[in-house]
Amino acid sequence: MTSEEFRQNGRAMVDWIAEYFERIETFPVLSQVEPGQTRAALPPEPPTSGESFDAILGDVEKTILPGITHWQSPNFFAFFPANTSEPSILGEMLAACFGVQGMLWATSPACTELETHVLDWMVKMLALPESFLSSTAGGGVIQDSASSSNLCALLAARERASNYTTNVHGNDRRLIAYTSTHAHSSVEKAAMIAGIGRERLCLIAVDDDFAMRPDALAAQIAEDKHKGLIPFFVCATVGTTSSNALDPLPEIGSICRAQNLWLHVDAAMCGTAALCPEFRFIHDGIEFADSYCFDPHKWMFTNVDCSCLYVADRKGLIQTLSVLPEYLKNNATASGAVIDYRDWHIPLGRRFRSLKLWFVIRHYGIEGLRFHLRRHVELTRMFAGWLRQDERFEIMAPIPLNLICFRHRKGDEANLKLLERINYDGRIYLTHTKLNNRVTLRFCVGQNHTESRHVEQAWKHIQRRADEIDLES
Amino acid sequence: MTSEEFRQNGRAMVDWIAEYFERIETFPVLSQVEPGQTRAALPPEPPTSGESFDAILGDVEKTILPGITHWQSPNFFAFFPANTSEPSILGEMLAACFGVQGMLWATSPACTELETHVLDWMVKMLALPESFLSSTAGGGVIQDSASSSNLCALLAARERASNYTTNVHGNDRRLIAYTSTHAHSSVEKAAMIAGIGRERLCLIAVDDDFAMRPDALAAQIAEDKHKGLIPFFVCATVGTTSSNALDPLPEIGSICRAQNLWLHVDAAMCGTAALCPEFRFIHDGIEFADSYCFDPHKWMFTNVDCSCLYVADRKGLIQTLSVLPEYLKNNATASGAVIDYRDWHIPLGRRFRSLKLWFVIRHYGIEGLRFHLRRHVELTRMFAGWLRQDERFEIMAPIPLNLICFRHRKGDEANLKLLERINYDGRIYLTHTKLNNRVTLRFCVGQNHTESRHVEQAWKHIQRRADEIDLES
Repeated sequence: MTSEEFRQNGRAMVDWIAEYFERIETFPVLSQVEPGQTRAALPPEPPTSGESFDAILGDVEKTILPGITHWQSPNFFAFFPANTSEPSILGEMLAACFGVQGMLWATSPACTELETHVLDWMVKMLALPESFLSSTAGGGVIQDSASSSNLCALLAARERASNYTTNVHGNDRRLIAYTSTHAHSSVEKAAMIAGIGRERLCLIAVDDDFAMRPDALAAQIAEDKHKGLIPFFVCATVGTTSSNALDPLPEIGSICRAQNLWLHVDAAMCGTAALCPEFRFIHDGIEFADSYCFDPHKWMFTNVDCSCLYVADRKGLIQTLSVLPEYLKNNATASGAVIDYRDWHIPLGRRFRSLKLWFVIRHYGIEGLRFHLRRHVELTRMFAGWLRQDERFEIMAPIPLNLICFRHRKGDEANLKLLERINYDGRIYLTHTKLNNRVTLRFCVGQNHTESRHVEQAWKHIQRRADEIDLES
Repeated sequence: MTSEEFRQNGRAMVDWIAEYFERIETFPVLSQVEPGQTRAALPPEPPTSGESFDAILGDVEKTILPGITHWQSPNFFAFFPANTSEPSILGEMLAACFGVQGMLWATSPACTELETHVLDWMVKMLALPESFLSSTAGGGVIQDSASSSNLCALLAARERASNYTTNVHGNDRRLIAYTSTHAHSSVEKAAMIAGIGRERLCLIAVDDDFAMRPDALAAQIAEDKHKGLIPFFVCATVGTTSSNALDPLPEIGSICRAQNLWLHVDAAMCGTAALCPEFRFIHDGIEFADSYCFDPHKWMFTNVDCSCLYVADRKGLIQTLSVLPEYLKNNATASGAVIDYRDWHIPLGRRFRSLKLWFVIRHYGIEGLRFHLRRHVELTRMFAGWLRQDERFEIMAPIPLNLICFRHRKGDEANLKLLERINYDGRIYLTHTKLNNRVTLRFCVGQNHTESRHVEQAWKHIQRRADEIDLES
């Protein structure tokens, strides 16, 4: 592709993207294709000769678009959001252009230093502990996902607890980790990957608000120690996936401090809320954390993937994940004056992900970001108000921020039927969970283009589908 | 950013990228900034209010650009390549626009099905075993890196060998894995992460060509079994990072088959060469592999990150990495008719990475891709020819494809000095390794815009720097 062709095709792509956002509300949010339908429209054999960009873009429109579930639709209220934004797209374009592999400082100093710098900014923006700043013994790194952030935290904790011998001798089966029954599935996955095993990840009971019970944690640790096990890691959640429950960090942190356990805080979705001073209560007790993660790719307008992991002791993390073969040795590394991020996560290679985060922060500014978060929380409260006035529904959990858990009082079957009806024609998209073993619908507001009219329409749509179910029963 | 502003800024970004490639040869390949220089040019505090896109792009030019090591320069001969291309950039733009999180089939069917489809194409394009096709019991998945691919292979092998009990009970310290002394550092890192430990990753000796010795492997396995250990995994390399050595897959595969060991083949860089029938010898014996990976983000014009992992038994991989919480349950998953790629790798979340790979394959076509690979190998052979005629240098390893390992005969110190001189002014960029414990320079040809004039200039530059060293000594 010549330079001139790239300019032309690039403009066509930019226009296509602009038009996509202009017409996004005309698409069903949840893709309506059947299994196999996308593949059936693709040629079975790869092309022998090159094809024109027009042909490719034509197939995006015809074949790919129907198979998209539109995460960027203002009518997407499912899971947690994964919002992108125009500046984020522009930043990703630039990262793809440079195509640097930032494994070492030397392989693109700006890739490392911009990341460190922007992550230091985020410490200030979220009012996180100073121990996470790169000017202290700590620091931050961008990972692909909170799953990987949680895994790295668990690994660093494992090594610290074993005096950095697990990397050498393998896992000690006496090591035992803790999280709540409502923690994200990635904590369990991390224990599996790390060779700790599910049996050695103890799930601590939650209170009526689905937050971890510190008394149950303390009792379990005491019992396990008595059995000769070695407690080493607690993962607390700030905003669980099911219900946005906030584990009580001050109490959990005190226990971890007293028992010398690594405290990791998973704030994947909710952490972003701390941009607003009035929401910083979610981080009460964060000063006890050895590590912390939140995902700008969820609620901060930065397209996937971008998860920020902070540690209070970067040396421990580096010691856990460092392998230095001859072919990666270089003067800058040897000088000790630079960060080599390859030692801070699972993969060796890494993209220039801080560019998009930098573009987002600069485009919106702190006040711009706050504006959108506050609007989301306000819209959520508006929706909750309507719910409370409709006696058919009950709200199932506290609503600290932008997620509402609710259910129809008629029972699990009615709720599953209701969910299917709600999602059926693609007008909006919700997902479900179980709270106290009861099917519960989740309504999460987090798209940058979601306005009050979308939430109003969603509520009316849900009411009408509930009317239908009422009539049928 | 309004739709009109996005069109305008998007065009400015496209133009900037086009100009970047037009002037890329004017930049020093290896960034010349000092540690801390990029950060010093960035404001210490994040912006309170939003800034204009012009201001951001201006800072890219002024602050970021000097801190870039230009992996896309035609004069980049370091490490392994990580080449991007225009169609790949356009594909990445689209992925950032959709911003889908493809953890489940339902969360964007096209994200899953295009990936499966393109990875099936790649099986045919590289003439890989049919057992890797999704129509069999196997299948492929895109990972972020060969590091993660290698880790997932090790984990699946660990679970198979332990009857899927390690995930439950934790690691059995009798498990032992094997790779060569020249395998990539990520294999060691995988053993550390998985709780296997470095002591239980046995490094097998290599022959004079730096390829794993099957006799040494067989002897070691026998010895370990005798000791009561449980051999479970062998990672063979097709194109080692130091020297592109090719481990003998037929012999290693026979041993693995006889002993019921999982054979993983890491072809991160070299695998792409199998696009050309004349280079398919690198995969002789691949039919023995339980898993295989290669990175289109290295030598196939697809910007980082894009590593393809194939397994012959997808059930085993899925069983190894699957956790299914209530909030991810959905009808499509329950039907069993779809792939949910979240179960195929470490993270839960995933980007729409197959788009860029699809764009690349369609833009170049098989013949276009072959054209570039053949040119790279030809340029490498040309360079090797010149080297052979200069008595000051010796070639240190066979040259199966696009990497030359060579050294000045004057010893380690002279070679380190030579390397520093070569890289000093940023005209070209080489890196080093050690072979037989001797400092060795690596020259790898893999950029899409590298032509004979670049390789000629590089050779003259290297000769002149060698002249200087000759004069000084």
